[in-house]
Amino acid sequence: MGGSLALALKDKANYITGVDHHAATRQQALAEGAVDLAVKDLATGVAEADLIILATPVRSILAILRDLPALRPDGCMVFDLGSTKLAINEAMAELPEHFGALGGHPMCGKETAGYGAADADLFQDRTFILTRNKRSTQDVEELVLAILDEIGANPLFLSSQHHDQLAATVSHLPYLASAALMRVASEQEDPTMWQTSASGFRDVSRLAGSDPHMLLDILLTNKGAVLEQLQAYTEELAAVKQFIREGNEDGLADWLSSAQRRYIGYRQAKKAMESDKR
Amino acid sequence: MGGSLALALKDKANYITGVDHHAATRQQALAEGAVDLAVKDLATGVAEADLIILATPVRSILAILRDLPALRPDGCMVFDLGSTKLAINEAMAELPEHFGALGGHPMCGKETAGYGAADADLFQDRTFILTRNKRSTQDVEELVLAILDEIGANPLFLSSQHHDQLAATVSHLPYLASAALMRVASEQEDPTMWQTSASGFRDVSRLAGSDPHMLLDILLTNKGAVLEQLQAYTEELAAVKQFIREGNEDGLADWLSSAQRRYIGYRQAKKAMESDKR
Repeated sequence: MGGSLALALKDKANYITGVDHHAATRQQALAEGAVDLAVKDLATGVAEADLIILATPVRSILAILRDLPALRPDGCMVFDLGSTKLAINEAMAELPEHFGALGGHPMCGKETAGYGAADADLFQDRTFILTRNKRSTQDVEELVLAILDEIGANPLFLSSQHHDQLAATVSHLPYLASAALMRVASEQEDPTMWQTSASGFRDVSRLAGSDPHMLLDILLTNKGAVLEQLQAYTEELAAVKQFIREGNEDGLADWLSSAQRRYIGYRQAKKAMESDKR
Repeated sequence: MGGSLALALKDKANYITGVDHHAATRQQALAEGAVDLAVKDLATGVAEADLIILATPVRSILAILRDLPALRPDGCMVFDLGSTKLAINEAMAELPEHFGALGGHPMCGKETAGYGAADADLFQDRTFILTRNKRSTQDVEELVLAILDEIGANPLFLSSQHHDQLAATVSHLPYLASAALMRVASEQEDPTMWQTSASGFRDVSRLAGSDPHMLLDILLTNKGAVLEQLQAYTEELAAVKQFIREGNEDGLADWLSSAQRRYIGYRQAKKAMESDKR
């Protein structure tokens, strides 16, 4: 995600310093011109930045935010791309007053992580959620909105709580549903299984390939909302299981039809949004 | 599915009669040359057929198989495209001795049903499962294999039981996982939800758009295997819920990593199959 943003901004920003632990990533980002300077050490990387953009798993972002006052005693602007927002915005609010900080989350995940998956067009036409905290100055908001404009993303301001609830539903629960399916299917070790699987299985299982480190941080920093969604989900499954077990044809038919009706409503809403943009 | 097969065979079969309740479907299939004759009445449609191909929801196939001895006292060959196979093969085995019957299921579902979704290339390079029963003569097997060759499908013989178990895992459970997600998400009626949803939600929810009539028959004719898979699935969800609730970081990390590892294994197996074919 950080690599994609650097690529998208490479001809637009004055100077981009990339910070990454891996030498291969630093070399590749430099070779492609995504960054002007690539360093391993965070302190060096952030020393002169006007704006620091944190693009790591959530708990690494939290750790960096705790260290930042010592690394930049003069203050600076901070933005992040973390997948959950409540914990990050609370940590941003703890920064000293001469920091300006805004939370962000672009809705354009892919299941592959790392610089190798970077894509300059990743943010084009995507919703980019922005979440304010006590340190969200006009300066940092204007700068971030200018960046979003450059990369073609659509800003949407939400509260951190609202973001995390929505993300639990449209992102974290789908991930868990997908991963649980993958685990159940592979458990059976049937050599003909993959010959019989088609596009349905492929699509529903795709998110199971997501980066487990990123997911670990997401699930542990959004426990409440994720557990609530998991509860609602297992209740739906218990209901349909009961209908099937009892052969309750009317109950099952209603359950199935309403799922299709709601899917059609969701697709229509998405189409309407896309045509609004044109 | 029946429309797709007629389109795929239109220049290869001597004469195709289509049977459909809807006048609009009959007119469209005739206009596109998918069929040589289109009739509403099943008795008329099957009167002179060498091979009858049943392409309706499973329980309609079962009803037609029960009526077939009266409709065709002279016997004929029968093939079907039903989504579950055990009940159908049992019904085929009950046909009089002068019938030849074979079960079939092409692994190329899409969530849209009806002739409007017909596609002559639907079966190309897809696995087409074939299931034998007491009435599976050499004649019907040879004819069906010749048809599969014409439409570019890859035949795979399995027992009805094995098919239904595999289908519960790679098709029926993914559908239920998808539909339950759609129901949970739309339940919340949050106007910003679809602005924040991206490709992850889209892919995992896609199967929720499947035809509920088809699904009703599938789930009620494959109860045992579906309930078993649902049980394994809800156990996986209960396990991950417990890890999250307790903040069991090691347990959660293992669960997530093994889901990704298994997904990678599955994708590698699919790629190996595709390169084998070339």
